[in-house]
Amino acid sequence: MFRREISRVHRGLKNLFRTDGEVAVLASSGTGAMEAAVANVVTRGDPVVVIRSGKYGERWGEICGAYGAKVDWLEVEPGAVVDPGELGDRLDSGGAKAVFAVHLETSTGALNDIAGVARAVGDCSTLVVDAISSLGVHEFDMDGWGVDVAVGASQKGLALPPGLGFVAVGPGARARVESSGSPRYYFDLRKYLTAGAENQTPFTAPVTLIAALGRALENLGTTDESIARHARLSRAFRAGVEAMNLEMFPAVPSNAVTVFAVPEHLDAEELVRILEEDWGMRIAAGQGALRNRVVRMGHLGHISDEDVVALFEALEKVLPQCGHPVEPGRGVRAVGMTLARSGEESHHGS
Amino acid sequence: MFRREISRVHRGLKNLFRTDGEVAVLASSGTGAMEAAVANVVTRGDPVVVIRSGKYGERWGEICGAYGAKVDWLEVEPGAVVDPGELGDRLDSGGAKAVFAVHLETSTGALNDIAGVARAVGDCSTLVVDAISSLGVHEFDMDGWGVDVAVGASQKGLALPPGLGFVAVGPGARARVESSGSPRYYFDLRKYLTAGAENQTPFTAPVTLIAALGRALENLGTTDESIARHARLSRAFRAGVEAMNLEMFPAVPSNAVTVFAVPEHLDAEELVRILEEDWGMRIAAGQGALRNRVVRMGHLGHISDEDVVALFEALEKVLPQCGHPVEPGRGVRAVGMTLARSGEESHHGS
Repeated sequence: MFRREISRVHRGLKNLFRTDGEVAVLASSGTGAMEAAVANVVTRGDPVVVIRSGKYGERWGEICGAYGAKVDWLEVEPGAVVDPGELGDRLDSGGAKAVFAVHLETSTGALNDIAGVARAVGDCSTLVVDAISSLGVHEFDMDGWGVDVAVGASQKGLALPPGLGFVAVGPGARARVESSGSPRYYFDLRKYLTAGAENQTPFTAPVTLIAALGRALENLGTTDESIARHARLSRAFRAGVEAMNLEMFPAVPSNAVTVFAVPEHLDAEELVRILEEDWGMRIAAGQGALRNRVVRMGHLGHISDEDVVALFEALEKVLPQCGHPVEPGRGVRAVGMTLARSGEESHHGS
Repeated sequence: MFRREISRVHRGLKNLFRTDGEVAVLASSGTGAMEAAVANVVTRGDPVVVIRSGKYGERWGEICGAYGAKVDWLEVEPGAVVDPGELGDRLDSGGAKAVFAVHLETSTGALNDIAGVARAVGDCSTLVVDAISSLGVHEFDMDGWGVDVAVGASQKGLALPPGLGFVAVGPGARARVESSGSPRYYFDLRKYLTAGAENQTPFTAPVTLIAALGRALENLGTTDESIARHARLSRAFRAGVEAMNLEMFPAVPSNAVTVFAVPEHLDAEELVRILEEDWGMRIAAGQGALRNRVVRMGHLGHISDEDVVALFEALEKVLPQCGHPVEPGRGVRAVGMTLARSGEESHHGS
């Protein structure tokens, strides 16, 4: 019984990552899956290039550092996306054993061009991509683009509770995984790939989450449908934000989270506080270097048209209280019209 | 809200381990918690003593080996328990930075004397104990005995789904954790203890499992009540097994699993197969060196008196089919009388 469940989950995840390789399912958060990728690709002393596109790019570098890699940071301005040409130049100076990138950097809302990154990396280096927030939300074509190792998690596009991490190992990356010299046991991907070939798990499996994952992969519909749903919501958020005279922060906005720049007169933390306390709605202020610079509104998973309209009704009331005047009805109208133009909300699952 | 949940969970786990130290809650299986203990205690090249009491003792050594420790195995015959005197002699030869032990070795059903092990270890070395199967099932007095680091998991005595691992760091072990030189990030206990002090988690928390854990810790009743419930079931299993002319395998049987030795005339794998296919009941054959030598019957978590009686009714029918004659009614009668003598089944929770 459970073997059939595991088999179904592996098939669904391979479709989602678009790989003919194998996908390891770990009982861990997304960060655990990131560490598994590092431990199986990097050996102490290896030179690696890490694209610092925001908080999660930074996390790649921290983990590589913990494993003794020599980290060469490729800096990206907050909200900007990585320039594949610049990455290519950096790699020409030679020697990087691996390159670490983030597809959708939720800390800034920016979507990096992983196809371009993969072309710049070519065959000289192992490309490892954090696709945690982009899987099922944006096109991700692991084998087609030439990504060697990619990680995901249960709680983003799949809208499951957290507790499962995924590491996809592309067909060409298996040899690299076999030969890593870092200490690894629980995160030893060889154990998962060997057990997975017989639809088993190397350690006690988190059975409830895996059963839910099988169901979620079915309910997602095709990956294209899931991407289209998220893209539609994202267009509505963007229309609403711009109609209220706010500017999008990232150079290339994503379908998972809408991030707007905080104008000088707006008290962003007050905005977040009032929305939560008086309206029961959660959006997020920027963190670290982006504190008071951005506001982030996530729209992953089960969000209805009504949820979006209700949020913008609240924003129209609360923004003026926090210093940013809004002409009543403009934001909500823009949201409503965008949703209507994009056709009926599609429904999946039961 | 979630902070209150985390705080409640930490309090409950400290009671369960009986420690004034701190308990890290990880999104991982029990093996992940074991690896976290190793990564935070052992540095490459450290000499360590590992008590090989069965499959899980072996696992300690494998993880220590993966982290580059010099493993000195203390061998224990299958089904026997470790002799604290022998451990003391081994440690007198000096130098072990840490000692790794398993409290309840479910592969053989034997319960090791951790109080004795802790006395033998004394203050010269860090004692790390796998209490995964014994927490809430047998007395475990971490601080009282002098255990430095102990690990647990959600799916045993707490009867939750798998997916959470626990690492308890005793008051005296904190310095050791601070100074480990092994690569660690996701399993870096310093992150969990620092975040935990503010009732937060360092990485995305598996919220559904943590909410269930809070409830399970409440429903457990006192640890003494939980131990008494498991001890009562265990007495009934043992009475039933002996009444059917089978011998207990472990030198010191545990409350979590009843393991009997397979007589030469009994086909153990056939027994397990028929019980599962014809009766829908799951018991387990031995693995590895214990294949065809033992049969293991687990009784952790939510098991009713009726469940136990039904299992022995089935065993009385199936054992003769597999070569071991049983006088009808003897096993069931012994089980029923033992349960009756031990008084009413206690009920907890709603």
